[in-house]
Amino acid sequence: MTSRILVRPKGLPSYPVWIGQGRLKTALAALPHGQHAVLIYDRKVAPIARDVGGALRRRFGRVDTLSVSGGEGLKHLPAIGSMASALTRKGVRNNAILFALGGGSVGDAVGFLASVYLRGVPWVSLPTTLLAQVDSSIGGKTAVNLREGKNLVGSFHHPLAVVCDPQWLKSLPRREISSALGEVLKYGLAFDLSLMSRTLQRWDSLISGEAHGLEPLIRRCLEWKAKIVGADPFEKNGLRRQLNLGHTFGHAIESLLSPRIRHGEAVFHGLHAALHLSLLRGHLKPTPPVVKLLRFFGARPLPAIVKRIKASALIRHIHRDKKSVGGRTTFILLKGLARPMEDSGVPDSLIAKTWRIL
Amino acid sequence: MTSRILVRPKGLPSYPVWIGQGRLKTALAALPHGQHAVLIYDRKVAPIARDVGGALRRRFGRVDTLSVSGGEGLKHLPAIGSMASALTRKGVRNNAILFALGGGSVGDAVGFLASVYLRGVPWVSLPTTLLAQVDSSIGGKTAVNLREGKNLVGSFHHPLAVVCDPQWLKSLPRREISSALGEVLKYGLAFDLSLMSRTLQRWDSLISGEAHGLEPLIRRCLEWKAKIVGADPFEKNGLRRQLNLGHTFGHAIESLLSPRIRHGEAVFHGLHAALHLSLLRGHLKPTPPVVKLLRFFGARPLPAIVKRIKASALIRHIHRDKKSVGGRTTFILLKGLARPMEDSGVPDSLIAKTWRIL
Repeated sequence: MTSRILVRPKGLPSYPVWIGQGRLKTALAALPHGQHAVLIYDRKVAPIARDVGGALRRRFGRVDTLSVSGGEGLKHLPAIGSMASALTRKGVRNNAILFALGGGSVGDAVGFLASVYLRGVPWVSLPTTLLAQVDSSIGGKTAVNLREGKNLVGSFHHPLAVVCDPQWLKSLPRREISSALGEVLKYGLAFDLSLMSRTLQRWDSLISGEAHGLEPLIRRCLEWKAKIVGADPFEKNGLRRQLNLGHTFGHAIESLLSPRIRHGEAVFHGLHAALHLSLLRGHLKPTPPVVKLLRFFGARPLPAIVKRIKASALIRHIHRDKKSVGGRTTFILLKGLARPMEDSGVPDSLIAKTWRIL
Repeated sequence: MTSRILVRPKGLPSYPVWIGQGRLKTALAALPHGQHAVLIYDRKVAPIARDVGGALRRRFGRVDTLSVSGGEGLKHLPAIGSMASALTRKGVRNNAILFALGGGSVGDAVGFLASVYLRGVPWVSLPTTLLAQVDSSIGGKTAVNLREGKNLVGSFHHPLAVVCDPQWLKSLPRREISSALGEVLKYGLAFDLSLMSRTLQRWDSLISGEAHGLEPLIRRCLEWKAKIVGADPFEKNGLRRQLNLGHTFGHAIESLLSPRIRHGEAVFHGLHAALHLSLLRGHLKPTPPVVKLLRFFGARPLPAIVKRIKASALIRHIHRDKKSVGGRTTFILLKGLARPMEDSGVPDSLIAKTWRIL
């Protein structure tokens, strides 16, 4: 099993994603020589930060650390300003490399900070949640939120390297694992029948927090993400948009219920909705594997708080998405399992009908 | 006389700088087709904004406007957040082009906004001050300030086009012209003996607000800037650093006295200091043209508020510059007129000596 995946963003330098226990040391040895490392970490993973800090000290002449509170509160311009000021006061110049240790919010915010601090410094992503490991840690998309919506301000700033150590997931609350499985399933549904069936088989044990056998699934998701990001580093062609399967409904659910629902959970329900909408639009035929999948989703119905969302509110939030142009929203749907497609012609009535079916 | 200069940033798309009265219309006609223009303008130039808005409406299907208060207050993350929120509420998506109309602060802030709003939208720079026209409008450097210092957060985001209309300078207070002449002189001293002597000849009439004959000087500065930025779009080699002649002392003076002194005025004194330091370091010989130049500066001594700056405070601010690494500051000095060079070995005692001489 390979422990290194190379992301090759067209027109940009390639970078490695290291996967496996204790890969940090190898990753650090492969980095270009730098004088100064700055570790920015979520307080919640302080014990991991101590280990990472030790590894950095063995590699860099100078190491500074900055602890932050992870979560959506970090993904705001004032928090970016506070972190930038802290770096300035520590004397961080453009010979430094920033290391972001934490979940998706830390990666999004510190990646954005790295893209704008002194007009850009390099960074390394060290994701400690399953969601960040399988999805947000690679691809170079960084962002903060505005009051008006999520991820409306940001940049493309690819890291120098990504390290995914499954050991880091061990200390996570069980829900941090289970809530990310929606994203794992997304890769299966969108691209990979084998990944899909392996995920479905292990679903109940994984959802109950059993992490055994997770590493091969993480690796497979990262291989897909690396491939797609490499071919479409700036989301300029349709390829990368396919990663949004389940996200149009998902983002709307999330923005209506956050923080009571996790991103991956919202995506799980979004996948369910996308499946039904694909059938209603006639793109997808109810073949036996599709029916089996519908039964899988059917056996895991919407929680009451999601069920209570009114179709009108959902539709309003769907059109508010930053990918909507002129009231038109492009859905990623399926014309077959592992065969994504775009559809910009979905009428609101069909969104409402889909929502009633779920 | 050419009315269009092409900036060719290595590895990026080229873009035009249009110079001359009424060139906006030509510039707009040459832009890629877009559906939506958003004009962000400094309230101080509202009359110009009305004209520009009219021209935009003749070219774009949809035009929105947003007025802001120019000045250093705009160059802060909270102001960027407010502008981004305003754009979101207006429904600005990534099919829009932002137009920044105003002085350097508007260009810096709106350029930065354009680089991060929805992870980047295109923008056009419409500078209305002499300082912005000759210097900051091209080059793609955008930035906001932190409490800890100027331009510490920003990006490289080259505009689609720049339009410099000398008519826009007519309504400016006289000091907005005179204070920018330091930057014009910088291009002469650093690169261009002919520009230098033409600027010196016309100095007294220009300083008194006489704008006649300014256009050829603006054009020449822009030709130099375009050439240097094209060869070094991300300030990766030493070339672009040469534009910092006079800026190491200049920035320190400015940060000590802002807002009582303008950027171009601080640069003027910075050039004077760089000249003396070049002599003290033995890089520059006191040839007759150099002696003549020293006499020119000598006849325009430091104002009292600048004179009162203590050498120790100046040295502290010089080393705080974001280009300083490990207490070492690289000065751009001269080994001849129009022959810039770098010097990282300047001892503090010589900075102090230079300051006593001025």
